[in-house]
Amino acid sequence: MQESFTVVGGGPVGTLLAILLARHGYKVGLYEGRPDSRRTSIYQGKSINIALSDRGWASLEKIGVGAEVRKQAIPMTHRAVHGSDGSLTAIPYGGDGDAIWSVSRGGINEHLLDIADREDSIRTCFEHRLVDLDFETATATFAVAGADQRIVQSDYLFGADGAHSKVRRLAHRLPRFSYSQTYMPQCYIELNIPANSDGTHQLEKNALHIWPRKDFMLIALPNPDGSFTCTLFMNFAGEPSFESLTERSDVEKFFAQHFADALDYLERPVDVFLEKTAAPLFLVQVFPWSFNCKVGLIGDAAHAIVPFYGQGMNCGFEDCAELDRLITKYDHDWQQIFPAYENIRKPNGDAIAELSKRNFVEMSDLSGDSNFQLRKKIEARFSQLHPELWTPLYSMVTFSPDIPYAEALRIGDLQNEVMDRIMQLPNIEKDWDTPDVMQELHALATKKLGDQP
Amino acid sequence: MQESFTVVGGGPVGTLLAILLARHGYKVGLYEGRPDSRRTSIYQGKSINIALSDRGWASLEKIGVGAEVRKQAIPMTHRAVHGSDGSLTAIPYGGDGDAIWSVSRGGINEHLLDIADREDSIRTCFEHRLVDLDFETATATFAVAGADQRIVQSDYLFGADGAHSKVRRLAHRLPRFSYSQTYMPQCYIELNIPANSDGTHQLEKNALHIWPRKDFMLIALPNPDGSFTCTLFMNFAGEPSFESLTERSDVEKFFAQHFADALDYLERPVDVFLEKTAAPLFLVQVFPWSFNCKVGLIGDAAHAIVPFYGQGMNCGFEDCAELDRLITKYDHDWQQIFPAYENIRKPNGDAIAELSKRNFVEMSDLSGDSNFQLRKKIEARFSQLHPELWTPLYSMVTFSPDIPYAEALRIGDLQNEVMDRIMQLPNIEKDWDTPDVMQELHALATKKLGDQP
Repeated sequence: MQESFTVVGGGPVGTLLAILLARHGYKVGLYEGRPDSRRTSIYQGKSINIALSDRGWASLEKIGVGAEVRKQAIPMTHRAVHGSDGSLTAIPYGGDGDAIWSVSRGGINEHLLDIADREDSIRTCFEHRLVDLDFETATATFAVAGADQRIVQSDYLFGADGAHSKVRRLAHRLPRFSYSQTYMPQCYIELNIPANSDGTHQLEKNALHIWPRKDFMLIALPNPDGSFTCTLFMNFAGEPSFESLTERSDVEKFFAQHFADALDYLERPVDVFLEKTAAPLFLVQVFPWSFNCKVGLIGDAAHAIVPFYGQGMNCGFEDCAELDRLITKYDHDWQQIFPAYENIRKPNGDAIAELSKRNFVEMSDLSGDSNFQLRKKIEARFSQLHPELWTPLYSMVTFSPDIPYAEALRIGDLQNEVMDRIMQLPNIEKDWDTPDVMQELHALATKKLGDQP
Repeated sequence: MQESFTVVGGGPVGTLLAILLARHGYKVGLYEGRPDSRRTSIYQGKSINIALSDRGWASLEKIGVGAEVRKQAIPMTHRAVHGSDGSLTAIPYGGDGDAIWSVSRGGINEHLLDIADREDSIRTCFEHRLVDLDFETATATFAVAGADQRIVQSDYLFGADGAHSKVRRLAHRLPRFSYSQTYMPQCYIELNIPANSDGTHQLEKNALHIWPRKDFMLIALPNPDGSFTCTLFMNFAGEPSFESLTERSDVEKFFAQHFADALDYLERPVDVFLEKTAAPLFLVQVFPWSFNCKVGLIGDAAHAIVPFYGQGMNCGFEDCAELDRLITKYDHDWQQIFPAYENIRKPNGDAIAELSKRNFVEMSDLSGDSNFQLRKKIEARFSQLHPELWTPLYSMVTFSPDIPYAEALRIGDLQNEVMDRIMQLPNIEKDWDTPDVMQELHALATKKLGDQP
């Protein structure tokens, strides 16, 4: 008999999960609380564009949809760093051919929904909002727009319903459910840089633009329509902060002082700043990710992270790819698949959460005058000389899907210990590129990392 | 005008807080959901006895109630370790005169309530269960047994309502409230060793008895009535576990195999084991601990920890003592007191949470044959030789109220690094007490810890 799944949440991760389950022969009901954005043409999902990188592509490719999705994505080969002094510096993300990709969340979602529609065994229902769930039997109750509640019974259920997951919130009443929700000091608002009148981009298209100002930063990602979606990250409280900047004259002064060159492009930044409420950034970590081998969590529902590594959707897609592998490995035995899935993915979810938190400093201090820039330069140089011994952390996370996040974090911490030693060498500022320093680094790296990939 | 406080929770911490606020001149309403145990003579609070040590005494003494409370406490000068082979070993908790004290939670609570009753400005209301709270105005709504809901308005409010705090749960709806709830792998059940017929103790009175079995353990704390309250800590799942031991014959075998000598004293352990549901152990960490400078959290409501360091109530009492100090320092300015309170106490709450988690291994491995025992022996010896340089972590936490928990954790981690090095010395098992080893330890400790208290 064909077993059945309920997938709660028709965002990119839920839809990809539905497709892979269907292709493994399951009957899938995909339930989304919002209306179908392809019909209303109003996309109501969160943050407008996101970065996809090698983990995401590798996962999509497993389901055979990578090439199709990539058509709508814009490669960003480097950071375009806008200094306070108006200077512009390009910092490549990796080696030749390495890029992260700006994709519209709405676009990729609709694309995956189209693919799901072509699968006979997926039935997609919009405007179905989960209100209750029996974790013993995977029986879900949905509130349906303009209709009676609907009770859906299937063999298994996945909550792919995002950072505010209702499935996860319902799991709070289960015994021994560990939960953490951590707010970052930063909040954000989105701003816009419109396209030129001919539909081209006002700023360089194939870059992620950053105005790093240490305690706060502005970033901009290109959209296919020529516009850029910008995000201003800044502390909620303190100086400067969303809390302290409430007067128009202060906000004008703030933009003029810190983002002078961006003011030529941004669309009504002061108005938007004053109109919008800054959105919080938070992480959610939970365990377990599965209940009674009947119900599982996936994507942001299992591990909401902050956006500073551009890995949120990549991580969710990787969850799907891991399940894909385990379904084959354990031949559809979900008594084995659920425990294996959470045991493999939980440490990786925790690792990318930690890495993403740390990366705010990395991004917002890019033009800082600290030792930090020198460290990165030394690492990059050494990695060119000895690629077998040293892949920079950013590249491990972003361009090396075969290295699990947890492993990247562990190796990165060892690299940090090595670099702490190197940075203490006398005259390192002057001598960093000398054979002596590179030799010392080689000796230390071999000792610390010799056995590592 | 006399300012007013609502204190939610009439347990030991809430009652102590009410007393200190009253003595600072505030009008205090103390609200407890349960009936007055002094009238019903049924104590409905949680776990029957707890360990009080120097932090608790120092805090009680600040309010001038230490001596009175101490009358009902039983000093435990050492761990009485019951080996699997029936052996009995005494391991002192500290130096001469150092002891931790077994107190009845109900007893100390009632004692503090009696003291509160003698304060004119405290009004205590039982059977008032908090149902809602306005965090802007500190307006509390209570469900009252057999009466209408009651709305209580005061200038400030403290949630001292324990690990399951309703004040804290209501705070979840506030923006930017970080929250974590972590379950330990262990659960517990309470067992009993009754008094001899003449009211004396069946086991040595002035000791905390431990049957350490590595993955699980039984402990026993003396009560003034001659009985011992015992707690069996064991994993929820795995082998052996509360989940796996469901058959009477298996439970009988389990006790006979691991706790043979305790079977002579324990009251119907197998029946009780089969009748009771194992209770979970969990930690709660939150931030902030105060809201709008109107509402605060204190004690387990702010930092529920696990019982393995015997510090839960000590930490809650220390919260009260810190507030006592800050009220004087900031001359009743709660715009300053609330932020200072949470900034000082939060790192200490986090530190004792971490220390308590780690201490399960410390307790349950006491008779293990690992290096662990040798480490402790070396540390104890060295601390005798150089008390100015080395106070063992247990003593810092338990007998050194002037060292904040966070500082104890930090120093303890440095001590660990030193001991890791020492344990790698060749022939350390044989030579540990030689002048050479002690000299090496002195050199390392001076380097690492020279600047430390």
